Amino acid sequence: METKYKEIRNRDDASVKSYPMNGGEGQYSYAKTSSFYQQRGLDITKTFLSEEITKKLDVKLLCSSSNSFNIADLGCSVGPNTLFGIQNIIQSIELTSQFQGLNVQFQVFFNDHTSNDFNTLFKSLPPGRTYFAAGVPGTFYGRLFPENSLHFVHSSYAIHWLSKVPEEVADKNSAAWNKGRVVHGGSKEVEKVFSCQYENCMEKFLRARAMEIVCGGFMALLLPCIPNGADPAKSSLVAAFDLVGSSLMELAERGLLDEAEVDSFNLPIYVPAPAKLESLIQRNGCFKIERMEQFLRPMTHDKRQSVEKLALVIRSGVEGIIKQHLGSEFIDQIFNLYTEKLIESELFSSANYVPMFDLFIFLKRI
Amino acid sequence: METKYKEIRNRDDASVKSYPMNGGEGQYSYAKTSSFYQQRGLDITKTFLSEEITKKLDVKLLCSSSNSFNIADLGCSVGPNTLFGIQNIIQSIELTSQFQGLNVQFQVFFNDHTSNDFNTLFKSLPPGRTYFAAGVPGTFYGRLFPENSLHFVHSSYAIHWLSKVPEEVADKNSAAWNKGRVVHGGSKEVEKVFSCQYENCMEKFLRARAMEIVCGGFMALLLPCIPNGADPAKSSLVAAFDLVGSSLMELAERGLLDEAEVDSFNLPIYVPAPAKLESLIQRNGCFKIERMEQFLRPMTHDKRQSVEKLALVIRSGVEGIIKQHLGSEFIDQIFNLYTEKLIESELFSSANYVPMFDLFIFLKRI
Repeated sequence: METKYKEIRNRDDASVKSYPMNGGEGQYSYAKTSSFYQQRGLDITKTFLSEEITKKLDVKLLCSSSNSFNIADLGCSVGPNTLFGIQNIIQSIELTSQFQGLNVQFQVFFNDHTSNDFNTLFKSLPPGRTYFAAGVPGTFYGRLFPENSLHFVHSSYAIHWLSKVPEEVADKNSAAWNKGRVVHGGSKEVEKVFSCQYENCMEKFLRARAMEIVCGGFMALLLPCIPNGADPAKSSLVAAFDLVGSSLMELAERGLLDEAEVDSFNLPIYVPAPAKLESLIQRNGCFKIERMEQFLRPMTHDKRQSVEKLALVIRSGVEGIIKQHLGSEFIDQIFNLYTEKLIESELFSSANYVPMFDLFIFLKRI
Repeated sequence: METKYKEIRNRDDASVKSYPMNGGEGQYSYAKTSSFYQQRGLDITKTFLSEEITKKLDVKLLCSSSNSFNIADLGCSVGPNTLFGIQNIIQSIELTSQFQGLNVQFQVFFNDHTSNDFNTLFKSLPPGRTYFAAGVPGTFYGRLFPENSLHFVHSSYAIHWLSKVPEEVADKNSAAWNKGRVVHGGSKEVEKVFSCQYENCMEKFLRARAMEIVCGGFMALLLPCIPNGADPAKSSLVAAFDLVGSSLMELAERGLLDEAEVDSFNLPIYVPAPAKLESLIQRNGCFKIERMEQFLRPMTHDKRQSVEKLALVIRSGVEGIIKQHLGSEFIDQIFNLYTEKLIESELFSSANYVPMFDLFIFLKRI
């Protein structure tokens, strides 16, 4: 056991790249922008979560040896969504445990990459919180916690981030070279290597969680998805990410960015179909799927405003990685052009594109 | 139990002031300066710790319900000392547990104020570490962890920091007004209110830890001390802190700082005698003192260099609180003058002063 334990030690090592959301509290910070897109997803899934917890959680069985209930939020970023999500979960568990005649104490572990802005996150913890808080730095594609130490794992809008971009897509000599584009879906070859990387990541994710979550414990995942059978290139969300690529290409044509550097740049993102994730969970074999809900993300009627907000959300998520690869000098030009392109695009109104869907999955550790 | 639990919720609230050590990795950062003073104390106590652990730790009894051994370092600051101290402890526990035929996993909780630079601390975690790491923001004068969730608590050079300066010492109309000085020991009245504040803090500290540490668990404390019966004003360490006050007064006389503001400034520090701490531990009643060692901190022969280093150590610890109270404008002048005064002083050579002592205490939760 000791060997296995040491092998999967989390090191945020060289093979795992780190792409934190924008830190701090400025205009383009994740803390500011995430209320638009991500919080609405959490609003929608609040009901799913409370239904599942109320029906299926046996607090006494889970906390048999102590009265501490341990929750982890993986890929928490800097708030406020992580706090909102955790609050929803705790409220439901508190109600359930009171109904079962128990008083539990909550310890919440907020996890993200070591380069995440934990200082900002810690300062935003609500003073009147009813849980003990801790931050856990490291990639969730490795081990983060001792065996059998967690009762509930939550992760929202995080597991579509890959641990790295597959090397082939940046390789001129590969059939999977993703020239002029930055996400999966552009060609069969590109889709295949991104999909492989995603499988590899999710296998690691599920294997690590299976060791950390006690038998009978739960895991709730929320992520963007593409409907089964749909073409990724026709997903409005994937296409919205790909417009980052078009913007970079245009600035390269204007001579502001180096074309070769732009060509070698890709986003470590994969938006899966529910069937793919389902088959990976089944292959792992340690979790039972209790609930799986795909739901539509309606854009508001005021298209311009809502697209501008989405541009900010995407900026707060990908600005850091663009700066790492292409420097900071033209970052405002890149995102001004990007916003224009997104507004002009037909991504959210044309029948040629599949609208944005999210996926909620509720798993039980068996 | 629930009521008690909620009452002592840690909020880093208004009554608890936050004075982090200097963050980052610059010249005056705690990360850079602390190797001089604090690490040498850890070197000396490494043997004490390993002797106590080897003799007294029953790993099987402690981790009866899981194979996870939970350690907390309270007032960890930004490293590298916290990492060094934890490494010592883990090595001793690993040896002991292997001897007892057990493999344990370690989860280490690094705690300090919410305003501590956790981002720097997390980046400095060693990649090949054999423990799962977490950061816990909040004051250790309140609850930080669920009941019975810790097996070993460590705290070095932290519990001489009070949760706040007693109000009387900044009050012109009080008999305990500490005019022109910044620490305890100046007069009987000042000593009394500082001592009261210290008792209040340590009562809270011990009460919280008694709830968090499992029965049979341990707590190791390392702190500066004054020998029993010695006059605090004649302790070279207390006097070294007080020279900060003389430096501020001199800059006020030169018109650079406001005299009233300087007069109302005090350091939230209390250097106790071993007997005092012993009686507080006995009054709390939840811990058995397994070992108590007072040891001398010899200054090196090259007096000038070693005093200059001590000045840097003190700067990294108190610069933040001085800036909070008196602004940043004259901070370099303050510490240049302070270093001169410390070099000129007879604190570390004169027979009129009691040399610097440290205190190691090893406690068992009974």
